[in-house]
Amino acid sequence: MSPLITTISRSYPWMKTPLIVSAPMRVTSGPTLAVAVSRAGGLGFIGPGVKTQDISSDLQTASSLIESLSASQSQPSALQNQPILPVGIGFQLWSDDLEVAISTISKYKPCAAWLFAPRHGQKDLDTWSRRIRHASPSTRIWIQIGTLAEARELAQGSEEPDVIVVQGAEAGGHGRANDGLGVMALLPEMMDCLPAHIPVFAAGGIADGRGAAAALCLGATGVVMGTRFLAATEARISPGYQREIVRASNGAVSTTRTLLYNRLRGTVGWPEEYSPRTIINKSFIEHQAGRPFEELKALHDEALKAGDAGWGPEGRLATYAGAAIGLIHDVKDAETIVRDVQEEVLQRLSNVQKANSAQ
Amino acid sequence: MSPLITTISRSYPWMKTPLIVSAPMRVTSGPTLAVAVSRAGGLGFIGPGVKTQDISSDLQTASSLIESLSASQSQPSALQNQPILPVGIGFQLWSDDLEVAISTISKYKPCAAWLFAPRHGQKDLDTWSRRIRHASPSTRIWIQIGTLAEARELAQGSEEPDVIVVQGAEAGGHGRANDGLGVMALLPEMMDCLPAHIPVFAAGGIADGRGAAAALCLGATGVVMGTRFLAATEARISPGYQREIVRASNGAVSTTRTLLYNRLRGTVGWPEEYSPRTIINKSFIEHQAGRPFEELKALHDEALKAGDAGWGPEGRLATYAGAAIGLIHDVKDAETIVRDVQEEVLQRLSNVQKANSAQ
Repeated sequence: MSPLITTISRSYPWMKTPLIVSAPMRVTSGPTLAVAVSRAGGLGFIGPGVKTQDISSDLQTASSLIESLSASQSQPSALQNQPILPVGIGFQLWSDDLEVAISTISKYKPCAAWLFAPRHGQKDLDTWSRRIRHASPSTRIWIQIGTLAEARELAQGSEEPDVIVVQGAEAGGHGRANDGLGVMALLPEMMDCLPAHIPVFAAGGIADGRGAAAALCLGATGVVMGTRFLAATEARISPGYQREIVRASNGAVSTTRTLLYNRLRGTVGWPEEYSPRTIINKSFIEHQAGRPFEELKALHDEALKAGDAGWGPEGRLATYAGAAIGLIHDVKDAETIVRDVQEEVLQRLSNVQKANSAQ
Repeated sequence: MSPLITTISRSYPWMKTPLIVSAPMRVTSGPTLAVAVSRAGGLGFIGPGVKTQDISSDLQTASSLIESLSASQSQPSALQNQPILPVGIGFQLWSDDLEVAISTISKYKPCAAWLFAPRHGQKDLDTWSRRIRHASPSTRIWIQIGTLAEARELAQGSEEPDVIVVQGAEAGGHGRANDGLGVMALLPEMMDCLPAHIPVFAAGGIADGRGAAAALCLGATGVVMGTRFLAATEARISPGYQREIVRASNGAVSTTRTLLYNRLRGTVGWPEEYSPRTIINKSFIEHQAGRPFEELKALHDEALKAGDAGWGPEGRLATYAGAAIGLIHDVKDAETIVRDVQEEVLQRLSNVQKANSAQ
């Protein structure tokens, strides 16, 4: 074990290497998914709720699921008898309510709090980190960044994170609007800038063992997958949305970063440095062709009523997803996803090493 | 050895694993660099000339350099006694002259011809491949692509390439203008689409052993580095340009894709699906601020006269470079670059495997 993996293992003793994390995707990363990922030897995060208040019921559900594990298993689960709740919780700082977050963390003591998208940069990250640590000293602070500027601010902060997540431009959902970069060049340059004693998890464009092994070679201690877990049995996602994740391919041209779908959904207020990656459908195609927003909005709201049929190439609903959608061909349970990726990482590392060591 | 590495070794018996290639960068990849890379156990490519006619003297120089190796070495070089010239040559199909290319290849028999940027897609690639194979059967055909659409066209082509280069969006110089994607998500999706029996080399954002190891995990048989070799002792590059490659960092924000510098230099005619990545300097900053092109052009031409001082943050000259510039901190000779990357790849694979196998 490397010292950085040891650091992670001390905080999350149930985790198995290679270290796999499911991203705190807003609403879609519910407690069932998070618990399933942790149970599989990964670390599952519950995503931010529509309102901060919503996470209380998610954490309650996660807590109950953990308690009920003994009844459903012949062997005691590694997740039980943990002094903390073995799932993490994610926050979007610009929109989440700090006081509600603190009281909820204080009550449920999740093993990790993932902080992202502050409105006032490092100042907000410091405030949230300090308050969370005071309310729940065993809750580890994960901070997500995507630029060297953020890395440098982090170094100036008063609260050092326990884990840093570096998100590349391939990621789905919200990421850097204009100053993002693919993981291949971003991660090593970030690694050279970040403190060596803090584990770094890589996110963005990783959907199988190949990407995970690559990220570890680039310097990550573990990896985060988002979109791959949208196609997990346990994701809290509409079947139409999930079908589209499985169907879509060619992420280079079938996904884009745009604020259009936020506007159509009425999701406003994100700090301007962020915008989401989504699968392109008719809303975007007609937007590019110049159709007025009000018409698109009316059609979008009609599509909302259509439910699952509102997604797909002919659909109009927001389909936030990463550029690696072309690597996702089926819905699997979270445990299978975690194990398959872990096995493929080790297999891949071994094969590449063998093939290249023989002179 | 994997079957794909064996395929490469048959064509290029002097190459050592991990397989490292220096990209055929226009003008800057001269014969001295190409021979030095091949001599180090990699495969060096000579870049396209300003005109196709220019490559004849480059290949002549490369040929002489190979012949003179015995005089300068105590042991015979693996590069000697090859039936072919152990360096490759690159072409930009839209601007290069096929007849001149064929007669030059026929005369010098370079071990590889790298075809890129056709004006008429697969049709041009097929024509060039067929003609080159007829003129020099031992010259292997390398074809560079960057999209799934190109991969599918390749599968429909009449001439199967010997090697495919998949270039990600992080790459310097010319790449996909609008439909590019970072290597992390692009390469595995491309690998799943390409024929399994053709070796794939990955390009874009790779500047050290971390990126090279990552690319191999993503499925590449070997890697191509461009920008890293701009900072090689043997590169045919102005000192001012080279200093800027070493100085610049934060590739996410200090590089961009823009046609501005092509226009300033008078480089016109590239098919519209391509545009180059460059380091941002005053030309681009003032262009974004709205300064008229004619003023920028006059200042650019002044800067041209200033020579090396025309590059740098206060400079105005084209500084084509990849997004991984932040990983390049020094000028090294090509042999050191190749060896350092190869050693780091093996070290990295071994360390990651060890750290993650221990449960």
